[in-house]
Amino acid sequence: MTPAVAEVVARVRAGDIRAGARLMRDLDDRAPAALAAIKALYPHTGRAYLVGITGNPGAGKSTVVDALIAHYRAAGERVGVVCVDPTSPFSGGAILGDRVRMQRHALDPGVFIRSVATRGHLGGLSRSTFDIAHVLDAMGYARVLIETVGVGQDEVDIMAAAHTTVVVNVPGLGDDIQAIKSGLLEIADVLVVNKCDRDGADRTERDLVYMLGLRRGARREVPVVRTIAVRGVAEGSGIAELAAAIAAHRAQAWTGAGAEARATARTAAHLAELVRALLAERATAAIAARGGVAGMAARLVETGADPWTEAESILAAITTPLSGL
Amino acid sequence: MTPAVAEVVARVRAGDIRAGARLMRDLDDRAPAALAAIKALYPHTGRAYLVGITGNPGAGKSTVVDALIAHYRAAGERVGVVCVDPTSPFSGGAILGDRVRMQRHALDPGVFIRSVATRGHLGGLSRSTFDIAHVLDAMGYARVLIETVGVGQDEVDIMAAAHTTVVVNVPGLGDDIQAIKSGLLEIADVLVVNKCDRDGADRTERDLVYMLGLRRGARREVPVVRTIAVRGVAEGSGIAELAAAIAAHRAQAWTGAGAEARATARTAAHLAELVRALLAERATAAIAARGGVAGMAARLVETGADPWTEAESILAAITTPLSGL
Repeated sequence: MTPAVAEVVARVRAGDIRAGARLMRDLDDRAPAALAAIKALYPHTGRAYLVGITGNPGAGKSTVVDALIAHYRAAGERVGVVCVDPTSPFSGGAILGDRVRMQRHALDPGVFIRSVATRGHLGGLSRSTFDIAHVLDAMGYARVLIETVGVGQDEVDIMAAAHTTVVVNVPGLGDDIQAIKSGLLEIADVLVVNKCDRDGADRTERDLVYMLGLRRGARREVPVVRTIAVRGVAEGSGIAELAAAIAAHRAQAWTGAGAEARATARTAAHLAELVRALLAERATAAIAARGGVAGMAARLVETGADPWTEAESILAAITTPLSGL
Repeated sequence: MTPAVAEVVARVRAGDIRAGARLMRDLDDRAPAALAAIKALYPHTGRAYLVGITGNPGAGKSTVVDALIAHYRAAGERVGVVCVDPTSPFSGGAILGDRVRMQRHALDPGVFIRSVATRGHLGGLSRSTFDIAHVLDAMGYARVLIETVGVGQDEVDIMAAAHTTVVVNVPGLGDDIQAIKSGLLEIADVLVVNKCDRDGADRTERDLVYMLGLRRGARREVPVVRTIAVRGVAEGSGIAELAAAIAAHRAQAWTGAGAEARATARTAAHLAELVRALLAERATAAIAARGGVAGMAARLVETGADPWTEAESILAAITTPLSGL
């Protein structure tokens, strides 16, 4: 470890906001020193509890996140937030992806919000989420909330980073069983019916409970919590009940017999994501070395040659090292 | 080309439904003969016009797709549909991803609906979309509609396969400018305000037009079309106007000076996706050869070693061929 890396490690472990934010940015830029730092920080992680909050756009996820922040802050816990949801107000539409955002928590040093840029991102959102979560963990945030919009394989992959996954539903969003259709029911540890003062809340809850019962091989209880999340308000809106359900899942899932298997599954997801991301970077570099994808594509268009054969030849070039190197 | 591959090619070119469906499935399974067939079919593609339809869940995309099918069928065109949206009724929640679906078009041989499985998918949804679109093209479908849910980099990548991208908006879905926040405005060639009989439609349209004006470097006109799409109904609901806007974009974008650059960009996206997908498959194989990711992860958990170093060593194994092979 170089002295510069050692200093980054020491500062991040001391909870230095600027050092943490810079490391996250450098990890996004794939700076070698940043990679050395995250490896060195790894033994100092594992204390944070990561809660994933997902659901379709319009379900009020960010309001639930905001209320949970207030809840955990009231309990004296420091809270880190990773925002992978491009529709979230926290993310600013991911336009400002490389900045630290504090918004209305700007004056609270116990809250650190970081959004993941979802546009033109190299090598996977899941990798960035794991990176940021590890930095927040090393910085001493006891709670890390991961907000993502729940509609795709990417988002399901991201949730592999969480210890407890909360799926937020809302009555009357076109189709009441969208959460089920989009595969979110399978990954839910806790279900929320948010905006439960709306018409149709009873039906949404009933549908969810019914679908939970239908799942093949259902071995665990998935609680359904009703909330009326109000931005920044911790009390009286079901948020305490939600926090209790998360704590109950933690006690049940992350202690005792199943805990090691879960830890292994989580590490496996992280490892697979890292390999995929490294390969994607290698591919990008190999394409750039051949004059960029645009030049290759122009040649294909001109000659009428098929892209499959061209892709195979690029792959052969990547996986066969040049002699003399 | 083996006789078996030649037969697949001939049958697909003749529009044989079973042969087309089987080739799509075999491409998903990465069967070598299927890859040979798609390469051989490539010179016979390029006639289909691909229209991407995207937007947030609840915007009524699949109803718009359904009405567009009816519109094109009324004009005597054969229509292929690629459904990448896990919340779409066409996809059956992608649970039935490997089947041909016809639903209410079951009796119409001029419509072919294929959904892309979005769960546990190896190597990218975008790759599958390109594969399926090429098969439909070779089968002689003049129109190919690609429905995807518009919230992530994956979905933006998929839209690179389309000639014209339609972004469907709806009034009152939590936040009126979600399409803008989630980056969809940037890729829209045509904007739709669906369910325009709802409260707030005027405001949604006004917001969209305003945001279109704000875009930096806006060089092209993006029309905003109002629809009240009704399943299977082509007339009197703005669908003819939507089809006209699509045709106008086609005439403007895909003829004349800019057409070649666009074709190159589309081929470039396809090529990049193929390289990424091939690498992901290689990674999966390398991990399996090392006893699977679970075994490696269990060792990491036991020793406390970091996943980054392990990922790098897997990558070295992939990109360095074994001597003697």
